[in-house]
Amino acid sequence: MEYEEPLFFRVMQYAARADGDVIDMVSGNPDWGSPPAVAEGLHEYADQGGAAFQYPPSDGLRELREEIASRRQVPVEQVVITNGGGGANYLAMARALERDAGDEVVMADPVYPYYPGKTTMLGGTQRFVETETDGSLDPAAVRDVVGEDTACIIVNTPNNPTGAVYDEATMTELVAIAEENDAILVSDEVYDHFDFSGEFTSALEFDSEHRIVTNSFSKSLAMTGFRVGYTIAHEQHTEPMKSRHMLTNVTSSRPPQAAVLHALRETDPDYYRESRDLLRERVATFTDALDDAGAEYTTPDGAFYVLARFPDFPGSLENTFELIDEAGVAGMPGSGFGSTRDDWLRFALVSPRVEEAADRLADYFG
Amino acid sequence: MEYEEPLFFRVMQYAARADGDVIDMVSGNPDWGSPPAVAEGLHEYADQGGAAFQYPPSDGLRELREEIASRRQVPVEQVVITNGGGGANYLAMARALERDAGDEVVMADPVYPYYPGKTTMLGGTQRFVETETDGSLDPAAVRDVVGEDTACIIVNTPNNPTGAVYDEATMTELVAIAEENDAILVSDEVYDHFDFSGEFTSALEFDSEHRIVTNSFSKSLAMTGFRVGYTIAHEQHTEPMKSRHMLTNVTSSRPPQAAVLHALRETDPDYYRESRDLLRERVATFTDALDDAGAEYTTPDGAFYVLARFPDFPGSLENTFELIDEAGVAGMPGSGFGSTRDDWLRFALVSPRVEEAADRLADYFG
Repeated sequence: MEYEEPLFFRVMQYAARADGDVIDMVSGNPDWGSPPAVAEGLHEYADQGGAAFQYPPSDGLRELREEIASRRQVPVEQVVITNGGGGANYLAMARALERDAGDEVVMADPVYPYYPGKTTMLGGTQRFVETETDGSLDPAAVRDVVGEDTACIIVNTPNNPTGAVYDEATMTELVAIAEENDAILVSDEVYDHFDFSGEFTSALEFDSEHRIVTNSFSKSLAMTGFRVGYTIAHEQHTEPMKSRHMLTNVTSSRPPQAAVLHALRETDPDYYRESRDLLRERVATFTDALDDAGAEYTTPDGAFYVLARFPDFPGSLENTFELIDEAGVAGMPGSGFGSTRDDWLRFALVSPRVEEAADRLADYFG
Repeated sequence: MEYEEPLFFRVMQYAARADGDVIDMVSGNPDWGSPPAVAEGLHEYADQGGAAFQYPPSDGLRELREEIASRRQVPVEQVVITNGGGGANYLAMARALERDAGDEVVMADPVYPYYPGKTTMLGGTQRFVETETDGSLDPAAVRDVVGEDTACIIVNTPNNPTGAVYDEATMTELVAIAEENDAILVSDEVYDHFDFSGEFTSALEFDSEHRIVTNSFSKSLAMTGFRVGYTIAHEQHTEPMKSRHMLTNVTSSRPPQAAVLHALRETDPDYYRESRDLLRERVATFTDALDDAGAEYTTPDGAFYVLARFPDFPGSLENTFELIDEAGVAGMPGSGFGSTRDDWLRFALVSPRVEEAADRLADYFG
């Protein structure tokens, strides 16, 4: 799968240029706003100036690493602050590949398109495992393609784009498969605060040298532009990841780290619950309308997205454009997420106008 | 040359644990403070929230790119915002190496230690060219080692650690050598605001497809922790650098980009002149004391650093520690910058206590 950065932009640009009003369900940018403590933390940091404006440690502000370590119940040495979840996945995948333990990266199809892109950039080979139609990943299917050439198995739970949440049995098996094959399971858990199923199981629950957990605050604190993420791994992995982070970025930016630290300390758990509840309602509203439109879809167990298939309306770029022009709703063509969802469209539920979008789709297809 | 991230930290940690008072001349963190518009820009950004907290374009905020393009008199398409100067060099060197036009990276010795480190990380081969004792780089010596295996020539002007500033004749030759050998000259110009000689010539003055200019605001706006830098190159290079930036970091952090944009617009040229004058005074104070200490040194033409050699006192890590304990001054061992300055120590003039440090050295060695 070739990395196509422009696809996302082409849809966004087409939507921006459309004559009529278009509801944007393309990006993964939360619309519900950060908790106030993010801005407060930034104001407090801005007032410090001087030495506080200089390099933080390469692996991140010590207090932020301690805060994360305490919440995730791991030793602080296992935490490295990265440039968002994207930076975390880059470091983790690079670490998996540089061990001289194979060059294959195994990932699900449909796939978050950065994974195959990063694989190729890092000199690895892409291997795909088809998920079930509901997005669930059968560990037996993973086991079938994993072997001595496998350096890395990367999964995203809750999943973009399928909305699947991998349960404890699945995660147990994935860790075991990584261990048995000297591979690294990279578990990208950036949507962990958006589990509607109660089944989400972090790979952190398995204290294995064969797993690296990646995460970020982009989604949970609605601040995708800040680029604060982290990896959690055993020290044999953190040291080389720290070196690579140093040689790539020196360090992640300090103002957003200070803002995140303040926000973690000051944000009430209600904030997270309310944004999850908001999304749960949007899922119900949107899938009701998909029923009216005669569409096939999977109700997501987590994350922000719904994959839908409309009768006689393949999820091509052409049809994506048609939906923008004719229905006033912008989604993403399923072909952007691998080879198995060409007939589908992905809708991101990150607009206050989800209900209106649902009505438009029901009108158009109904 | 092996990349030794810990050396810098070992010196810092040793200094921090010392019994007596130690003047820190180790890091490259400006101590003179950012202009007020940096904090103002951060406050303004923090007040925006919502959509302003979400992903900026991967290549950076359009207005910031336009501001830089206008100042540097290049088309905006040539500007990519990076995670600091370190990120800019990473992208530029990776671009030079991925062209299948050789795997060697040619650099000066003494060298900024990230260059050889990045070279190895990117799968390249290190080649060194010794500078003259005064830090100047003879283009003929560069020409001697450059050939068909050369992918990249990376230079830093004004130079860390030597303080050399490459003049127009040198830069003209370096660009010509890159062109003749299908190599990319990466010109790292992060100290461009600290030229005391008037001889500084940016590689931007040569409109060549064989040069990429890297820069950052870390030094010129005294904000090393913000991580805002940029590359300027022809579009055949910017497109692959943008893809790599997307796949490594998604984008650079947005709050610091907003702060830099505001600071560029609102900061009086006096700010830059005053910090340059301050450094010029510190150079004079420090080198006078080095005379009293009987040391050999080169008066820097630019940047923040002085390399000095004391009689019968090689610049080893052991002697660096001794100087911390006995003289109360922390520098960096010359061996950290390649193979040619083992006898030397580097002192960063980024402390308000430069005069006191100079007196201490004069007392200790005098």
